Amino acid sequence: MKLQVDINCDLGESYGVFKIGDDKKIMPHITSANIACGFHAGDPTVIMQTVKLAKKHNVAIGAHPAFPDLMGFGRREMQLANEEIKDYVIYQAGAIQGFATTVAERLQHVKPHGALYNMATKNEKISKAIAEAVKALDKQLIIFAPPNSALAKAAKKAKLRVAHEFFADRAYNLDGSLVSRKDPRAIISKPREVVNRAIKAVTEKRVICVNGETLAFESIHTICVHGDSPSATKLVVALKKGLEKAKVKVTQVGNFV
Amino acid sequence: MKLQVDINCDLGESYGVFKIGDDKKIMPHITSANIACGFHAGDPTVIMQTVKLAKKHNVAIGAHPAFPDLMGFGRREMQLANEEIKDYVIYQAGAIQGFATTVAERLQHVKPHGALYNMATKNEKISKAIAEAVKALDKQLIIFAPPNSALAKAAKKAKLRVAHEFFADRAYNLDGSLVSRKDPRAIISKPREVVNRAIKAVTEKRVICVNGETLAFESIHTICVHGDSPSATKLVVALKKGLEKAKVKVTQVGNFV
Amino acid sequence: MKLQVDINCDLGESYGVFKIGDDKKIMPHITSANIACGFHAGDPTVIMQTVKLAKKHNVAIGAHPAFPDLMGFGRREMQLANEEIKDYVIYQAGAIQGFATTVAERLQHVKPHGALYNMATKNEKISKAIAEAVKALDKQLIIFAPPNSALAKAAKKAKLRVAHEFFADRAYNLDGSLVSRKDPRAIISKPREVVNRAIKAVTEKRVICVNGETLAFESIHTICVHGDSPSATKLVVALKKGLEKAKVKVTQVGNFV
Amino acid sequence: MKLQVDINCDLGESYGVFKIGDDKKIMPHITSANIACGFHAGDPTVIMQTVKLAKKHNVAIGAHPAFPDLMGFGRREMQLANEEIKDYVIYQAGAIQGFATTVAERLQHVKPHGALYNMATKNEKISKAIAEAVKALDKQLIIFAPPNSALAKAAKKAKLRVAHEFFADRAYNLDGSLVSRKDPRAIISKPREVVNRAIKAVTEKRVICVNGETLAFESIHTICVHGDSPSATKLVVALKKGLEKAKVKVTQVGNFV
Repeated sequence: MKLQVDINCDLGESYGVFKIGDDKKIMPHITSANIACGFHAGDPTVIMQTVKLAKKHNVAIGAHPAFPDLMGFGRREMQLANEEIKDYVIYQAGAIQGFATTVAERLQHVKPHGALYNMATKNEKISKAIAEAVKALDKQLIIFAPPNSALAKAAKKAKLRVAHEFFADRAYNLDGSLVSRKDPRAIISKPREVVNRAIKAVTEKRVICVNGETLAFESIHTICVHGDSPSATKLVVALKKGLEKAKVKVTQVGNFV
Repeated sequence: MKLQVDINCDLGESYGVFKIGDDKKIMPHITSANIACGFHAGDPTVIMQTVKLAKKHNVAIGAHPAFPDLMGFGRREMQLANEEIKDYVIYQAGAIQGFATTVAERLQHVKPHGALYNMATKNEKISKAIAEAVKALDKQLIIFAPPNSALAKAAKKAKLRVAHEFFADRAYNLDGSLVSRKDPRAIISKPREVVNRAIKAVTEKRVICVNGETLAFESIHTICVHGDSPSATKLVVALKKGLEKAKVKVTQVGNFV
Repeated sequence: MKLQVDINCDLGESYGVFKIGDDKKIMPHITSANIACGFHAGDPTVIMQTVKLAKKHNVAIGAHPAFPDLMGFGRREMQLANEEIKDYVIYQAGAIQGFATTVAERLQHVKPHGALYNMATKNEKISKAIAEAVKALDKQLIIFAPPNSALAKAAKKAKLRVAHEFFADRAYNLDGSLVSRKDPRAIISKPREVVNRAIKAVTEKRVICVNGETLAFESIHTICVHGDSPSATKLVVALKKGLEKAKVKVTQVGNFV
Repeated sequence: MKLQVDINCDLGESYGVFKIGDDKKIMPHITSANIACGFHAGDPTVIMQTVKLAKKHNVAIGAHPAFPDLMGFGRREMQLANEEIKDYVIYQAGAIQGFATTVAERLQHVKPHGALYNMATKNEKISKAIAEAVKALDKQLIIFAPPNSALAKAAKKAKLRVAHEFFADRAYNLDGSLVSRKDPRAIISKPREVVNRAIKAVTEKRVICVNGETLAFESIHTICVHGDSPSATKLVVALKKGLEKAKVKVTQVGNFV
């Protein structure tokens, strides 16, 4: 069977007059949108516009729940009770689900944002709380998680579908974590290199880590691209082209996971 | 056919450690709960608890969307664009709908809160925005509105079900509006009087206004009681008893509207 | 005596990762900064950076208090009690005053933002609440207000110093109000025209209104420029040059009001 | 010289219609008020009322800055950059200082709240950030901190005055930390025991820890009482009486530290 992969992007991150990203430019080129839910970014009007834009370009709608920290864009760790995490995810994903309904679509997936994502990849209890929230909302939902992470495991244990995510423009450590943004090597900026890493990850299930060693992982189902850089659109176009040239079909993850 | 009426109450208004109302005491005695959605009161954990409590006592779940004004409890008028109102209602009601799903229930109704409710009763455009939001979310939803109000009309125009609401413990003006809380006559505090007014409203479709004249209206479907006073529970018990004695069946509004 | 005028700009409007304006570029060319206080824009870290930047370029520090409405950028009218307005202004201006202290400066002025400014120009009670707040905080503070406005009058009645403000890039109605942004004629975009209007306003105390008639007013003390357009810096440079060529000294309003 | 001690209480924790504590009852009996600044509790109107109440009862005004987490009442750890902590403290304490000015008073002290306090007692960098903020605002300000804590040390290093704080109704571990609220022994509820512990702490500089051993510390300058329990006022009255009977003068900490 032909290899398939999804391209996802964090969108709907504007808030009132505060603009982030160029959603209109990048939406036509991706297959899944992780939509900010109002806790770290995004407001109801931005969500509505983003959901309509996704619908227009046949992009699957996902929720991107986060810690309640607009001032820190959800990037700062917060110590919450597991119940709180569960309830915050239900609230945020429920809201996006509501908007999806208004355009006759269903929520495809949930991808935790920022510090919540990072904490969940390593922490069993947080992952369990997120998986329970998602399952309670809709058993058909897919959770986005790094391969082998605590989050991927929790999702599988809850019998939820999981999409293994690969960050094509970020350097990896050998334990599967991303190199910190404080390290100058964290970001892969050359488009050709990003594309090649993505192809290798999907077709060979491996990446060359920052220390030169090879990290192998399970099948990759979705590749994350960042929408807030000026060159984001170019990169996504190149990525899609490269993947298709390598005989990988680019399609919504809900179609094949 | 026997007369039927619903008893609704604003619940889930606590926020973190900030406690409002005694939801556990009043929930067993009402038939519909208007649950705060986080904009004027309520947080995800409070919503979850309130939804579970409603489920336990077979109380229908409703959303109580408001202006984004926690500091003012949604009681202060805000001038929003119609699109903003629509999107804010979808966001808030969508979130509550998500929580309802987690306990295998469906959202029964939407009742705008505070200043949004008051503005909607008089303003066509605001009412239209609310009705559109509710319809886009779920055509089966019921809108709570005063009989004859702009909100009731907008809901009917959108072919949505409407529940005419009567405030048993509030004095009325002849135009159907409530006497302002700044007026000492605004609140009816004697339980017997509150009960009698409710019975009269349901069975005779009329209320004696603050000026002594009689205001007639269409059928009343739901009676609002306030849960934040210490005597609220007593009052609701008396109200239910009184209504049943007057041969009015007290049941969820979704059963008969 | 030589004519003098101040050039003010709304700055510090970024919020966390949400960036607005290019404060570093425009700050060297203005004389007074209206710094967002966190209610409609601005967070403590942004305020600190903006206060330091103002200090570095010898720009006077002002507070730009607003309605508590980050989602609406303080541009949506809210109906608050007068006490609330007073307390919100004290809170916000007090916070900026604290930051000014940390760089050994004093707050020079308070300019209400957005909907609060617009409402105050017409409403006596709101203006009185603002003037009382400012006076209670520091009797030396200057209030920015349109000439002849309710806000200018309230400030004078409270024996506070007032700086009459002129919007060089906005069209005026004959009653002294700004033409609504919904009107295509609202914004004056040609730099030369903006500069000429400013010079005329300062030296001749008049402006040609949108209907062709002339509006005369009291002395102008400060000219507002907008920092969020890409051409803002160019415009301010041209404005300063034009004013100086017209023998008008450009200096902090605290020096001469 | 006669021993002196201050009695402090966290006040102004209401927020809009959300009421916490009975400030009017407890204020007459304490000597220093830690006033919530809006980040974890408190709004500008509540701050104004609390500052006026403090003034009326000759109680010293302090700021109680916290993490920006109203939903969690500032009790949840957040991982912030040191600059952020510094700027958040300046913002919050600056705002309270502004209100103090309006009643012709000066801010006496700053006491970090909740998780920020707990983290600061153990963490040098956080303590340094807080001390720098306080110093930048006003070198005369006093920092409240547990004896021997990282926060007390940072304050002293910054040449700020420190008030060593003792929690009379909380059980202690031998390392000087408070027994977690999850432990049933955490709260000392018998008034007589609370009073005796306070007297012992002030006059003998020691406390019997939860494990039976004795913890000795430096001089205690201020005793914290909690205002949100119904019996709080009684306890404070008993505490004051007990201390005075033990020849300890109860007075504002600014008078003797």
